Amino acid sequence: MLALALPASRPCTALPAVLGLALLALPPPGALAQAAAATIPLPEPRGQTLLLQSVDRADYGPLAEQFLTQANLAYCGVASMVMVLNSLAVPAPAAAGYGSYRFWTQENVFEAADTRAVLSPEVVARQGMTLQELGALLTSLGVQARAIHGDRLSLAQFRLLVRSNLSQSGDRLLVNYHRKAVGQAGGGHISPLAAYHAMTDRVLILDVARYRYPSVWVPLADLWQAIRTTDSSTGLSRGVVVVRRI
Amino acid sequence: MLALALPASRPCTALPAVLGLALLALPPPGALAQAAAATIPLPEPRGQTLLLQSVDRADYGPLAEQFLTQANLAYCGVASMVMVLNSLAVPAPAAAGYGSYRFWTQENVFEAADTRAVLSPEVVARQGMTLQELGALLTSLGVQARAIHGDRLSLAQFRLLVRSNLSQSGDRLLVNYHRKAVGQAGGGHISPLAAYHAMTDRVLILDVARYRYPSVWVPLADLWQAIRTTDSSTGLSRGVVVVRRI
Repeated sequence: MLALALPASRPCTALPAVLGLALLALPPPGALAQAAAATIPLPEPRGQTLLLQSVDRADYGPLAEQFLTQANLAYCGVASMVMVLNSLAVPAPAAAGYGSYRFWTQENVFEAADTRAVLSPEVVARQGMTLQELGALLTSLGVQARAIHGDRLSLAQFRLLVRSNLSQSGDRLLVNYHRKAVGQAGGGHISPLAAYHAMTDRVLILDVARYRYPSVWVPLADLWQAIRTTDSSTGLSRGVVVVRRI
Repeated sequence: MLALALPASRPCTALPAVLGLALLALPPPGALAQAAAATIPLPEPRGQTLLLQSVDRADYGPLAEQFLTQANLAYCGVASMVMVLNSLAVPAPAAAGYGSYRFWTQENVFEAADTRAVLSPEVVARQGMTLQELGALLTSLGVQARAIHGDRLSLAQFRLLVRSNLSQSGDRLLVNYHRKAVGQAGGGHISPLAAYHAMTDRVLILDVARYRYPSVWVPLADLWQAIRTTDSSTGLSRGVVVVRRI
């Protein structure tokens, strides 16, 4: 596999697709094709069957109702935050152009000075956000957000966290992962998890880059590898953010 | 019930909520509270259970993957069209700011001169669109679109159309209806249908005004009444548009 020198791999930075194909040494040769075959698109009948069979899917209903396309190529974290805030019915500011209706958008989520002090929308639009920044932005928005680096979680711990979170509707789970490890072209990415399918040990990612990949069921072990990859902009591993209303 | 003089009731025109409460004489006194109780929000466990039990739900997966919030208070028809086009994978133009990725948005759907010749985005943003305009806009976008006025359909014919369309994934069904007849405040509206639940004779509306109402399961008979209401801007009844790829 060709190794290339690449710019800092914050989530959702707009790398040309051709680079994405040779992005990371992980997983080992042969495993990529296997992993690609292992993703099951949610909109297809097979994906819908897994959804029907899933027991740990309390987050799916509220999140699917708020499903969004990221507003630009670097806004995966922003779209993910907005889905989580709306799905938890966190009190929202007014939305420009919608009269008196109040809901979170990818614009008004940066309205508060506390939030912009963490990271400005201009910076995010240029370079995305890291796991820590995702957690800090959510905290500034008045929810409880706990960032956990992937290399601090065993596979069993990750599975427990996923099942526990997705089986109750009062909390949400965001993942910051590397697409390559789940068999997709691309780099770092952020999206919410919505359901877990025990029989196949798969987890459902509602992918906010909907123009690029559909939502997919991926083997939990692949996603675990994907959150343990190193974000070269921090030198730390990617991971998950657990979000709860205060 | 208070009767008010109201402006032309094209879909999604931005009426204050307080007016919406007294908008239409339909349904008769007493029935409104009943109908309101009869809507079941999709994101809630009861709504998810209906989704799990539904057999006629081939359109749900592709449409839910493309779920959108209408871009302004009058864009219910535009958001609905975009969901349908993306969910049918109709070849799309480029989307500004997304590099080489191509998908339909509430902006680029008006890119073609043929489409703007039917209706300009400025006019739609001001006054929404009628059933006929919805059909004509979709036709201009290269799909087969057949508008059927609600008063041309018996309840049995409407049920047959809904079940037949929602049980196969290659076509879509948009409804232009009056919210009041399904127990909601508001006026004319447009959204796609995604699933039918036989045991309760209910149909699932993926409501593009997500800031206002969640997606709901409504009794088919209520929706049938709602598509038979008269659009005062044309003097004709509302109805459905059946959409297919050519």
